[in-house]
Amino acid sequence: VLIELLTIGDELLLGFTLDSNGAHIARELSALGVEVVRRTSVGDDASAIAAAVRDALDRTGAVITTGGLGPTADDITKPAIAAVFGRALVPNEELWEALRQRWKSFGRTGEPPAANRQQIMIPAGATVLVNRHGSAPGVWLEDDRGRWCAMLPGVPREMRAMLPEVIVPRLRERIGAESRVVRSRVLRTTGIAESALPELLGELTAGVNGMPLAYLPSQEGVDLRLTARADPADADAKLADAVAKLRQCVGRYAYGEGTEDLAEVVLQLCRTRHKHIAVGESCTGGMLGMRLTAIPGSSDVVAGGVISYSNWSKSEFLGVDSAVIDERGAVSEDVARQMAAGACARFGTEIGVGITGVAGPDGGTPEKPVGLVWIAVCVDGDVRAHASRLFGDRAEIRFRSTQVALDMIRRALAA
Amino acid sequence: VLIELLTIGDELLLGFTLDSNGAHIARELSALGVEVVRRTSVGDDASAIAAAVRDALDRTGAVITTGGLGPTADDITKPAIAAVFGRALVPNEELWEALRQRWKSFGRTGEPPAANRQQIMIPAGATVLVNRHGSAPGVWLEDDRGRWCAMLPGVPREMRAMLPEVIVPRLRERIGAESRVVRSRVLRTTGIAESALPELLGELTAGVNGMPLAYLPSQEGVDLRLTARADPADADAKLADAVAKLRQCVGRYAYGEGTEDLAEVVLQLCRTRHKHIAVGESCTGGMLGMRLTAIPGSSDVVAGGVISYSNWSKSEFLGVDSAVIDERGAVSEDVARQMAAGACARFGTEIGVGITGVAGPDGGTPEKPVGLVWIAVCVDGDVRAHASRLFGDRAEIRFRSTQVALDMIRRALAA
Repeated sequence: VLIELLTIGDELLLGFTLDSNGAHIARELSALGVEVVRRTSVGDDASAIAAAVRDALDRTGAVITTGGLGPTADDITKPAIAAVFGRALVPNEELWEALRQRWKSFGRTGEPPAANRQQIMIPAGATVLVNRHGSAPGVWLEDDRGRWCAMLPGVPREMRAMLPEVIVPRLRERIGAESRVVRSRVLRTTGIAESALPELLGELTAGVNGMPLAYLPSQEGVDLRLTARADPADADAKLADAVAKLRQCVGRYAYGEGTEDLAEVVLQLCRTRHKHIAVGESCTGGMLGMRLTAIPGSSDVVAGGVISYSNWSKSEFLGVDSAVIDERGAVSEDVARQMAAGACARFGTEIGVGITGVAGPDGGTPEKPVGLVWIAVCVDGDVRAHASRLFGDRAEIRFRSTQVALDMIRRALAA
Repeated sequence: VLIELLTIGDELLLGFTLDSNGAHIARELSALGVEVVRRTSVGDDASAIAAAVRDALDRTGAVITTGGLGPTADDITKPAIAAVFGRALVPNEELWEALRQRWKSFGRTGEPPAANRQQIMIPAGATVLVNRHGSAPGVWLEDDRGRWCAMLPGVPREMRAMLPEVIVPRLRERIGAESRVVRSRVLRTTGIAESALPELLGELTAGVNGMPLAYLPSQEGVDLRLTARADPADADAKLADAVAKLRQCVGRYAYGEGTEDLAEVVLQLCRTRHKHIAVGESCTGGMLGMRLTAIPGSSDVVAGGVISYSNWSKSEFLGVDSAVIDERGAVSEDVARQMAAGACARFGTEIGVGITGVAGPDGGTPEKPVGLVWIAVCVDGDVRAHASRLFGDRAEIRFRSTQVALDMIRRALAA
């Protein structure tokens, strides 16, 4: 099955928005065995939308669009594409009723705004693609030659949720059994530089089992991506074998696969080991707590923490000796150690973390430059501390600090 | 000047790579007065590249491509596009000499690999676009009707450096003095739904001063973007006037412009009013602290905070009455109020925040469903609390909670 994607919005043509919707759909459909052969973006312009859909239908007869289904004047996807198919727009009162229910469920009174009526206008003969995640329904429009256009909302959360619900089942029907898929697996590593990986990987550096190996460095570490193009069963077997080989080479630097978050890995380890965590954060200002509690169900592991952004609060809430702060400075090994131990003591947890550093852009000195971060982890009374020299801007330095802290917990618990 | 962009590479069609090249060029050219009317991505496939360039030339007669200029077998942009223009590829020995010099300058011995010969093949009659940042030269190809295609390398660093060097000067010549630029301004609003804005905006809903108005909803609120297409001086004047009109309609819902962060606005207000902040966070787990401390220099306003993820820690660190937690539940108005007041008292600040809610996906009940968040803000001893029904997934509910909290501080200080 060949397909084209059309993403709609002035912000795409002005370069204000990265086309993450197109990339997401492309990734999901490739894994399914659908081949995306062209991606196009046009603005909120009826004739440009119509021309792009007409072109795509002429080439592949199959196109998925995102964007322009909202309740405002610049949302013109449905009328523009209905015209290409020669259909009129008709109001769907069932959708209006659903919208009213939604409105009420949010505790609002009266009727939804009149502007929302636009969202229940559906091309004649089209199938409504139910949107359980927002107010804009999707539309599946098909002509008598089997050429079709599926319209999805541009809000990424809604589009991502709808894709497996309303698009994938319809495409599965159209895909033959013999279809080749493009599938990939990602092994996540952290604590090792991209330039140091080839030494570990040896002959796997260029690829594994005939599959290319891509190095994807980010704030989280370096992801290793393998991509297979084969029939579904073959692809999965080749990938599983290749990931196992990579894991053997990378050893303790590997912490997960796919989009697995290190915080999730740490929470899982804590559950197995019956440990609880409390954090003491200075330069990260709550980011470690935020990352841990971003994972659903984290409350059985995370007791809480203190954002000790002032010296006084380090002493008051974490019991750091103020004389030590005066002598060694707030960014120092001793302070990080006392923060970690204090977090354990005050919250009554087995694990405590202390993070104190210079996130920049100002505040660096020759002895304590921007990017110097002291991190200490206390596990069952045993405190280990580590000084990192992290690179990047303020946001990166802060994120990398939380990643180092999480990895220190992971290694301590895995040992 | 109307123009199209074509980005080339299998990774784009597989969705592994976000098309940041296309977005970058679009942004730079729009501000210059060039209008990007369509963006297309195709794979490393000669006939797909040729078809896309042919289509673009028929529509606008002007296209910039990125990608496919490297030394490997999948780099086929030049032969594919040369064929569209009916040109042969001829070796450019000057380029070969430059490549040899580059090779030597890296301290390498012998000749560059034969594969690099591919990079010096240039369509007959084309202009070489010098690449001082890598080995792949760009190409400017133009026919006798003035239709042109500029090819740039796909490596972002090289493409970004070449754009102002070799593309912008050529486009400036074509733009002419009377040329219209595309400039935009964004007014940021929060605390009001996209569907409720038309009522406030009245006749401005569809546009202001003849400029279209785009609604960009996100977790932060709804951004209103105005885009002017006019000569430079006119554009700026029209935009300034239109933003003023929007501000008047939107009133207190407007908190900033451009990419200004609400946390930054709040910090600025606190500095003016000589206020300091402490946070008490339950369901947001440190995210509010993280957002405030993400802004450089925030330590003069932010004293710190407590991540009170357990009931016990709410009492221990923020002084919440445990009897009230038992009676009303942790997610309740009284607890939020006591958290806010406790944050002030314990940290000695003029402003305290308390956030407690059900972020989901589990833990909701009919009385306290997922998305219910109680937020209290204490300013100089005066506590105000507000129950929000927030939508989205766990991450969104948490982010929206911090946005509501920040907005409550902003409104309290602005009053």
